[in-house]
Amino acid sequence: MEDESKVPVGRIVSGIQPSGRLHLGNYMGALRNWTLLQERHDCFFFIADWHALSTNYEKTDALRGNVRELLLDFLSAGLDPEKCVLFQQSHVKAHAELYLLLGMMTPVAWLLRNPTYKDQMAQIENRDLAQYGFLGYPVLQTADIVLYRPTHVPVGQDQIPHLELAREIVRRFHSLYGEVFPEPLPLLTETPKLPGLDGRKMSKSYDNAVFLSDTKEAVWEKFRTMVTDTQRKRRSDPGRPEVCPVFSLHQIFTPKETVATIDRECRTAAIGCIDCKKILTGEVEAILEPARERRREIEGQGSERLSDILESGARKARTEAELTMEKVREAMRI
Amino acid sequence: MEDESKVPVGRIVSGIQPSGRLHLGNYMGALRNWTLLQERHDCFFFIADWHALSTNYEKTDALRGNVRELLLDFLSAGLDPEKCVLFQQSHVKAHAELYLLLGMMTPVAWLLRNPTYKDQMAQIENRDLAQYGFLGYPVLQTADIVLYRPTHVPVGQDQIPHLELAREIVRRFHSLYGEVFPEPLPLLTETPKLPGLDGRKMSKSYDNAVFLSDTKEAVWEKFRTMVTDTQRKRRSDPGRPEVCPVFSLHQIFTPKETVATIDRECRTAAIGCIDCKKILTGEVEAILEPARERRREIEGQGSERLSDILESGARKARTEAELTMEKVREAMRI
Repeated sequence: MEDESKVPVGRIVSGIQPSGRLHLGNYMGALRNWTLLQERHDCFFFIADWHALSTNYEKTDALRGNVRELLLDFLSAGLDPEKCVLFQQSHVKAHAELYLLLGMMTPVAWLLRNPTYKDQMAQIENRDLAQYGFLGYPVLQTADIVLYRPTHVPVGQDQIPHLELAREIVRRFHSLYGEVFPEPLPLLTETPKLPGLDGRKMSKSYDNAVFLSDTKEAVWEKFRTMVTDTQRKRRSDPGRPEVCPVFSLHQIFTPKETVATIDRECRTAAIGCIDCKKILTGEVEAILEPARERRREIEGQGSERLSDILESGARKARTEAELTMEKVREAMRI
Repeated sequence: MEDESKVPVGRIVSGIQPSGRLHLGNYMGALRNWTLLQERHDCFFFIADWHALSTNYEKTDALRGNVRELLLDFLSAGLDPEKCVLFQQSHVKAHAELYLLLGMMTPVAWLLRNPTYKDQMAQIENRDLAQYGFLGYPVLQTADIVLYRPTHVPVGQDQIPHLELAREIVRRFHSLYGEVFPEPLPLLTETPKLPGLDGRKMSKSYDNAVFLSDTKEAVWEKFRTMVTDTQRKRRSDPGRPEVCPVFSLHQIFTPKETVATIDRECRTAAIGCIDCKKILTGEVEAILEPARERRREIEGQGSERLSDILESGARKARTEAELTMEKVREAMRI
């Protein structure tokens, strides 16, 4: 992860689609960074529920539950509504208004050649994705960002083209109507592809994930049953860390010195797989146990607590968004 | 014009883009009908300022003036804020929210094959119209309509495909999320192509229009200088009404019996062109003079009057739109 302390203090905007429980990959790729950012910056973090429709408009039964789940994940990961603005996209109608306005001046050709669109169209099967809203995903994303006039947007390497498109749309807006938005800069977040329990990238759809909301028992059960080096049949066989998915996880969660020790002791069969997995579990639990504690705390505050947080966040977000929309309407002479 | 009194009492929604002063063609094609509809139906008539951006996003300097001008035209034509809801599209943000939501489930293919889109892309030159908002014009139009759950939408023959597309989008919504909207029926309005001063269709861009806001002197000057039958060089020459643009206008504005007399007397040179034009002017002034009177009245009520009408209309429209959006959000589980 980039040393974000070098970035001048500014405003940050980012969002995640509510599509189910967050796993360690999501945490390491985004949330952990957000919890650091909220300490020094003016942060707006949102649950992108409208965006979730662009790929999942047919099945919305789980949407409300997913929003609640995602907020709980946010809070359990350490996001603090006193330190950042946490809100739900659909609670701030200005996202839709700005999406509409930016869409008026965004060439369809820009959207069709967007590599993420092309990739997704190619990758995802069995879904009729060629909907108008899906095509306009980057327009809505641009609106989501610039509505809060951020200085920086935390992005992974793979999202750079999306942010570049947002910046292009902003430049077009400025050339037509004059300067309104700061052009948001990328705050590059290193997002190591976190391996899952089977060594492939951790992903809900591969069923190889450890979730922020997993119980301690569930986590241990997942690690305990992980396949290691298949050639290491007996405890006394030496192992090959370079082919072991447990070792890949150590490289992310375990301090370097311990990783070096494990590497050495695995190759000499000085350490067994179960002990090795126990060390990993300890490191992961150092993240998950405080998260569980925060989750219990929030849940203990009653069922209204989550709605209250979202409502209070929406109020703050709306105030800021309305300031932007006044400038936008004035610039466009609406 | 269809006998609208045969239509059961229901709710009507329609809008016009603010693109400058309305002319007699606009009046005969839409506004006259609206003034009849407001007497028996629950009517929502709006100034489609966001729509104006879909073809004119580059030049918005005139937009605010055009909105004001259009409202004055509405009122001078006889629309009465006590009898119908008059409002400005951009004052009701739910139009943008519903546009976003409907767009999520509208196939891009439906929009590309929309004949109006194909026509406009082919016809209009010198404008880079292939913008995302322009492509989604029918989605926004669908939102504009169904937001008020109308039973009927007054349309000319040429707009039937647009309404059909709106109905298709509504059916798709219903099949995905359940019934929310009544499917709006077309209330077919006969829209005679009103000839302009030069015999071509009356149009601002042909510079051949008589405007609702023209002064009496300006109207007479326009009619007085109209070219008639070019072979009728002297007062004593017989004329050919079938090639005379003044006669075309008589056929629309003048009572049948008088038209028959003019036809006869023109062919025998019993009536001269100036007298013929005076009769036409009298018929047109029977529409324009009351319109001017209403315009003077409104203008006499001070500069705040127009804003007050729009604000009060927006309040009523928002209340109704919010009822719809609650149903929509519930159906979509947002």
